[in-house]
Amino acid sequence: MKTKLHYLDHAATTPVLPEVAEAMGKVLREDFGNPSSLHAAGRRAKELVEDAREQVAAGVGARPDEIVFTGGGTEADNLALKGAAGKLRGNADHMVVSAFEHHAVLDAAHWLGTQGVEVSHVPVGGDGLVDPAAVASFVRPSTMLVSVMAVNNEVGTIQPISEIASAVRAVNPRTLVHTDAVQALGNLPVDLHRWEVDLAAFAAHKVGGPKGVGALFVRSGVALEATAHGGGQERGLRSGTLNVAGIVGFGLAAQSAAKEVHEKAERVGVMRDRLLDGLRAEIPDLVVNGTLGSRIPGNLSISIPGTEGETLLLLLDQAGIACSSGSACASGAIDPSHVLSAMGLPQKLARGSVRFSLGRASTDEDVDAVLAVLPGIVARARRAA
Amino acid sequence: MKTKLHYLDHAATTPVLPEVAEAMGKVLREDFGNPSSLHAAGRRAKELVEDAREQVAAGVGARPDEIVFTGGGTEADNLALKGAAGKLRGNADHMVVSAFEHHAVLDAAHWLGTQGVEVSHVPVGGDGLVDPAAVASFVRPSTMLVSVMAVNNEVGTIQPISEIASAVRAVNPRTLVHTDAVQALGNLPVDLHRWEVDLAAFAAHKVGGPKGVGALFVRSGVALEATAHGGGQERGLRSGTLNVAGIVGFGLAAQSAAKEVHEKAERVGVMRDRLLDGLRAEIPDLVVNGTLGSRIPGNLSISIPGTEGETLLLLLDQAGIACSSGSACASGAIDPSHVLSAMGLPQKLARGSVRFSLGRASTDEDVDAVLAVLPGIVARARRAA
Repeated sequence: MKTKLHYLDHAATTPVLPEVAEAMGKVLREDFGNPSSLHAAGRRAKELVEDAREQVAAGVGARPDEIVFTGGGTEADNLALKGAAGKLRGNADHMVVSAFEHHAVLDAAHWLGTQGVEVSHVPVGGDGLVDPAAVASFVRPSTMLVSVMAVNNEVGTIQPISEIASAVRAVNPRTLVHTDAVQALGNLPVDLHRWEVDLAAFAAHKVGGPKGVGALFVRSGVALEATAHGGGQERGLRSGTLNVAGIVGFGLAAQSAAKEVHEKAERVGVMRDRLLDGLRAEIPDLVVNGTLGSRIPGNLSISIPGTEGETLLLLLDQAGIACSSGSACASGAIDPSHVLSAMGLPQKLARGSVRFSLGRASTDEDVDAVLAVLPGIVARARRAA
Repeated sequence: MKTKLHYLDHAATTPVLPEVAEAMGKVLREDFGNPSSLHAAGRRAKELVEDAREQVAAGVGARPDEIVFTGGGTEADNLALKGAAGKLRGNADHMVVSAFEHHAVLDAAHWLGTQGVEVSHVPVGGDGLVDPAAVASFVRPSTMLVSVMAVNNEVGTIQPISEIASAVRAVNPRTLVHTDAVQALGNLPVDLHRWEVDLAAFAAHKVGGPKGVGALFVRSGVALEATAHGGGQERGLRSGTLNVAGIVGFGLAAQSAAKEVHEKAERVGVMRDRLLDGLRAEIPDLVVNGTLGSRIPGNLSISIPGTEGETLLLLLDQAGIACSSGSACASGAIDPSHVLSAMGLPQKLARGSVRFSLGRASTDEDVDAVLAVLPGIVARARRAA
């Protein structure tokens, strides 16, 4: 299976960096202490965790004491929304989310809706961008939190988070601003203090780290209710024995992602543009989903009229090319992507969508492989449909 | 720091088994796919997860489709209690927990208490055992769930879970029975179908697996509400990208723990008894916390009159011996252990408690090391107090 795999699904997950795997292996073999233990083995584990906390904080423009380690991006998003609601209920009963958030945000908000929180969904433009003024128009005195993702996971569009935060504060300075930044780290410079958000979610495995680790940035002074209760780790916000090896891996991956962001953007952008130009020459009626103007360089989400994305995906897979239709989390589902629907794409067109996402490990050969086979696959898929 | 470390804190966490570290390293280096992805890399990751699910299920006497992977034991306990409450609210409003549960259960129950669930605490005997009849006496028509741990984490006493489940069902057959079995796996044979529990929590790092992975057993037919919302992984009960490497490690560790349980029990029991006999000869007034009659072989929790557990811990640490006073999660705290308090130990005595927990890696030299230094340390601690 690994001969000639062309992996173009970096938005779903990324290969673990060799130095991350090595550092994690060392921790697993040598440093097994529980960071909550007082003895030498425990103190050593705690030291490793705190070093990683500094690395993650530095990588996202935060202070180490503003980083809460979680079991992943989904848990971080859940902690942000439910933690804010748990703390603020009574004073506030309203939440605003964009219509094309990741399910971790949308479904957490939906659950809060069943608990008496009113949830408003901000419409998204056909360009895949959320308008700060539109967000602000939904904010009321009773709005506890606004959640808009920094980068959409399907179409890769970069949202004006800083402007959204300002616009929200201008209407209600008590409203918390959360951003799901899972797709932002490593793809654009992340500077949370400059963005002036209160909360932000991250996942290690999107930046060359391991699966099963994430973080929630909680701005100093912001109070949340815990979602997992127990031993009181992570200042009581996330109880549970810390995943020391995973956290060490996350620290290294975050540091590396932040350091290489500009170099990677340039290199990956050139490949993405060559992929798009090549495909357009062969499939002139393809539609790029969302604007190319404000998009991370690795993303190419396209819709191909007269095809089914699932079919394209399977045929590409047979040709050794890994990509995605819609987000990976939902790719078992048959419904057209909620992201493309929110952007107003006609259902028929949305069903023919494919996402190529390039990353640090992508090469010109990967692009060549897609250019070599996709036109033929599209022809086959059109005959099948 | 690693020269001559005598690690007698296996109840806090265990060294990762070499074969677990190796298998995880291979996954991290080679199999980075997202198990939710449809392409070859994703299918390979899913295969690894499902193989591990079978290993864990076999190790605990369950079916693979009854295993929900989580980010650890604490998350599993939280999902059990809150998931049951979320599903059953409206029909039931009462929960029963033993007074010496792990904080993951106690604090989740306490939080539910703030949400309108009435919580009863079953008293614990001075022997560290929970009486099935006492549990049953708290059960009412409105009792949604009973939670009693299989093995107490501090004193190592084994609870009559099967009898507790029967006694609860005799009063209310609709009441769910959950057991925090985090300290049971690897220390006694775990057979969930025979125990007839509905829910059971496990943590990989207690059995030679990695930190940051756990599982909740959810008996076929039992419905829970999710606590983490998002991509719908784990049958919608635990959204979030699966920790593939960690889950692979958990599978191997659970398999090995189940296979070696009898051999380990015999070997570790002999060492524990020698440790106790040796200490009694030198410190005749030491008190063993809880009965020795129904206890996992690796646990020796003692109280030493006229000492402070924290002092003993620090002096032992200086001598290269890692152990614990109270549970690791709470060992930053100064309060005497809630477990020993629940067992009726006088506060003064409870403050002088130390827990030695032996495991697979323990050796006669570890026991010798404690026997050589503890009597002198006790004398010093008594002078200090």
